[in-house]
Amino acid sequence: MTDRMERQFRFALEADKEKRIGRQTYLSNGAEKENDAEHAWHAALMAILLGEYSNEKIDLLKTVTMLLIHDMVEIDAGDTYAYDDNAKQTQREREEKAADRIFGMLPDDQRDRLRGLWEEFEAAQTPEAKFARTMDNIQPAMLNCATDGRAWKEKGVKLSQILERNKITPEGSKALWEYSLNNFIMPNVEKGRIINN
Amino acid sequence: MTDRMERQFRFALEADKEKRIGRQTYLSNGAEKENDAEHAWHAALMAILLGEYSNEKIDLLKTVTMLLIHDMVEIDAGDTYAYDDNAKQTQREREEKAADRIFGMLPDDQRDRLRGLWEEFEAAQTPEAKFARTMDNIQPAMLNCATDGRAWKEKGVKLSQILERNKITPEGSKALWEYSLNNFIMPNVEKGRIINN
Repeated sequence: MTDRMERQFRFALEADKEKRIGRQTYLSNGAEKENDAEHAWHAALMAILLGEYSNEKIDLLKTVTMLLIHDMVEIDAGDTYAYDDNAKQTQREREEKAADRIFGMLPDDQRDRLRGLWEEFEAAQTPEAKFARTMDNIQPAMLNCATDGRAWKEKGVKLSQILERNKITPEGSKALWEYSLNNFIMPNVEKGRIINN
Repeated sequence: MTDRMERQFRFALEADKEKRIGRQTYLSNGAEKENDAEHAWHAALMAILLGEYSNEKIDLLKTVTMLLIHDMVEIDAGDTYAYDDNAKQTQREREEKAADRIFGMLPDDQRDRLRGLWEEFEAAQTPEAKFARTMDNIQPAMLNCATDGRAWKEKGVKLSQILERNKITPEGSKALWEYSLNNFIMPNVEKGRIINN
């Protein structure tokens, strides 16, 4: 048991590094950008608030756990910006290697369980993974809208890119995707903060 | 439903402010201090990793939810440093007022549920609240130890203060309290980073 607990605490300490992995999304104050730990917390909290809108019945603890760990591989692999096509080509390989090392720190049963949840999130096939992906996409859209589209403007993001990225968002929740499209995305197309093509 | 969803998203956006509420704990890199959102994420993740050591059987989703929201009142009330006795005198009043406003943004059923979980965490009487408090105390001890006791040294913290603060920590998990005492706290007393009285 001592060795088990030791491994669990080593993993818990390693996880701390996620607080230093930066993302491209601005916080609602419009000044700083968020990091992976903040994003994971926010997305997990939103799953608890909004789980009632899932298309399918979900196990909320499983969904929340998935969201809490979904970016842990970025400790080694870094954050791959959603619209960086070059980085996206090597993303899978970099992240698999990171998953080997990071989840490998845990006792075998927890390694298998958490790595399994990460793979499930990536595959986006189960009800929990679909809803977690919906949260992962809606949370930054909410913040981008709250900051007058600053991140979208700076990167010159096109509506077609956003729609492509969000192809799976309605699979988790039609109702939340409609809300996000109508309240976060389209008003920023109309205001010219998202390129309309 | 639209008004309901509107209120839920307003609360979700308000929660973003927790990423700007600073704490006294240094990240494991020893350079920056963590904020409330990062701390909540870390403590929730640790509950998932370490829940098996709870003295009593716990509902893990309830425990994780509690940890995700336990510092939300600090958006208005600020972080009260654990060893600041003056600030602690007004803490309860400031936090109750904050809870009225912040949880009051939600639809009534979610307001009652989340506020109830926050009150339960504060009272520390149920198995879930006790275990959540254990996480809330062990997470910063782990980081303080990982940074060679920097936060303890800077504030001149005494062992008696740490033991007083951790009086309830073993109520959530005897095994984790012993681990924390033997691995995080006592080695730093021996090295003179925590004042031995």
